[in-house]
Amino acid sequence: MSQSANQKLGRSSVKLERDVYINSSASVVGKKEGEGPLGLLFDMVGEDDLFGCSTWEEAESNLQKDAIYLALEKAGRKAEEISFVFAGDLLGQSIATSFGIASYGIPLFGVYGACSTCGEALALGAMSVAGGYADQVLCVTSSHFASAEKEFRFPLEYGNQRPLSATWTVTGSGAFVLGSADPGRHSRGRITGLTAGKIVDYGLKDSMNMGACMAPAAASTLEQHFIDWNSQPEDYDKIITGDLGTVGQTVLIDLLRDKGYDISAVHMDCGIEIFDAQTQDTHAGGSGCGCSAVTLSAYVLKQLEEGSWKKVLFLPTGALLSKTSFNEGQSVPGIAHAVVIESV
Amino acid sequence: MSQSANQKLGRSSVKLERDVYINSSASVVGKKEGEGPLGLLFDMVGEDDLFGCSTWEEAESNLQKDAIYLALEKAGRKAEEISFVFAGDLLGQSIATSFGIASYGIPLFGVYGACSTCGEALALGAMSVAGGYADQVLCVTSSHFASAEKEFRFPLEYGNQRPLSATWTVTGSGAFVLGSADPGRHSRGRITGLTAGKIVDYGLKDSMNMGACMAPAAASTLEQHFIDWNSQPEDYDKIITGDLGTVGQTVLIDLLRDKGYDISAVHMDCGIEIFDAQTQDTHAGGSGCGCSAVTLSAYVLKQLEEGSWKKVLFLPTGALLSKTSFNEGQSVPGIAHAVVIESV
Repeated sequence: MSQSANQKLGRSSVKLERDVYINSSASVVGKKEGEGPLGLLFDMVGEDDLFGCSTWEEAESNLQKDAIYLALEKAGRKAEEISFVFAGDLLGQSIATSFGIASYGIPLFGVYGACSTCGEALALGAMSVAGGYADQVLCVTSSHFASAEKEFRFPLEYGNQRPLSATWTVTGSGAFVLGSADPGRHSRGRITGLTAGKIVDYGLKDSMNMGACMAPAAASTLEQHFIDWNSQPEDYDKIITGDLGTVGQTVLIDLLRDKGYDISAVHMDCGIEIFDAQTQDTHAGGSGCGCSAVTLSAYVLKQLEEGSWKKVLFLPTGALLSKTSFNEGQSVPGIAHAVVIESV
Repeated sequence: MSQSANQKLGRSSVKLERDVYINSSASVVGKKEGEGPLGLLFDMVGEDDLFGCSTWEEAESNLQKDAIYLALEKAGRKAEEISFVFAGDLLGQSIATSFGIASYGIPLFGVYGACSTCGEALALGAMSVAGGYADQVLCVTSSHFASAEKEFRFPLEYGNQRPLSATWTVTGSGAFVLGSADPGRHSRGRITGLTAGKIVDYGLKDSMNMGACMAPAAASTLEQHFIDWNSQPEDYDKIITGDLGTVGQTVLIDLLRDKGYDISAVHMDCGIEIFDAQTQDTHAGGSGCGCSAVTLSAYVLKQLEEGSWKKVLFLPTGALLSKTSFNEGQSVPGIAHAVVIESV
């Protein structure tokens, strides 16, 4: 019976009895990301952020297409061997995904969790593999600075000023081939469990300070994770949020201290790592559902491969706003999904 | 081992070895839907389409909230007993969902498949239950005529003329409690399998004829389903698409005839059933990811309960466009996810 194979821990967490292997992954980023601290680690860096396309949206679609192409190639897989692709992006109606992956002809489960989408896609993808529903699946997410600014904030041509709490949407896409087996023992990591997050809304309304909006969701999922798994921060070499940035990081650490957990020694945020805020004018850090995806692929999985880390908790956070909800005066609720990733 | 419990049929289809029960469901609709042919079957009909809210988006959120409330109540479940909610809507960044279900505090997997979202949510929800990841999950989707017109087409105040191929977005939300058990033997149906759809793009660009844009996707998923399951149209009492409308229905039947399948005797479309096109001025039919959800809850599951039908294939279709993709001259790709539902 499959029920015994996958252990429920509380209602939100699942311990996968059968490991799911990250057979391969790939990262494709824009010029600015290529110039940042992780620049040399990405698989592909664009010369400009249009990637040969005529619109920002098409460029973002292209990011997904290229990331999938590279991930499939590295895994030695053809698109026809992939059962499902779990994919999403930040744009209205997820159009970067719709136009990015159609040509591969892989059955699609579209997912949306704002910048937490990479965590959601990996969680659902891992469950579908561990459950025996698929031998291989793809997980892919993307974001693009220019398409996101247009979608959520102001046209680039306005030259809008940004407060120091604002983050800079990463132009990038990360793709991951998950499999039930570890062909050639070349897999980059193992997904061994997850904690699904719920929406947390502290009533904050400042879309220029999304780190603070999302930190309560990260704290909620982390606390639930520690309870469900009966674990502590020091059980992980790193606890890796997606794009809280420097402001959100402070809030998260404070919120968890109040709950009795000190993650300050092991916390890392992809948004803080991907840019050099001093020289790249990115303020609080990088963001977007490409940010955590490309950092996971290029940097985090590398540490697991090289043995620097054995076990990490990957926890991308999302801010569930839209231009419409913002203009109608709604708050910015957050969500965060956690995935346990261990070295092979 | 769970691998033996869930049988993969081809790469896109899954036969759930353990049935997943639709423990309960609920439908909440607007005034116009209440006046339609299925009006008396819905659980709740709004007196107007604002449902006491001040914006269309908030009203749509309220639809989801009410549908979940009723479904939980009918199932005799509290929100705390639900592991995951699979939810989505048509609005940019799925804000109807984000603000509709937050208060329940259930871990959320946001899904997006345009008007196919109800099929996607049921497919993923059923897999998570059959895989032993959850005892109970919720699946909920919604659409709202006024929020969708604002999101995709023109402000209502324009009084825009609509061609006869256009569909009318249904104001409604359907919620479903799926469970691994059948408490009291009161469940409304069983989900026994699924076929996930891929994006199909015939290059059509007319967002006022979405039936024709989506029909090729429905044909693709149906053909794949017949192949994977080694089945024929007559194996089902009904094959039920979501919102192809009258134009899309004709295209679907023709496309499948070319592939050697005649579904004309068993095909039903929720969009055609929900309105009386002659008297309600809805042209080609109803649409939106509330359309298939409320029709499934109010009408289809009733037939299964009453024994009129034994086995249906529920196949909502989605048009993967956004205002931005449309304005940039992109085509309108389609997608369709199929779920096999049998009587208890």
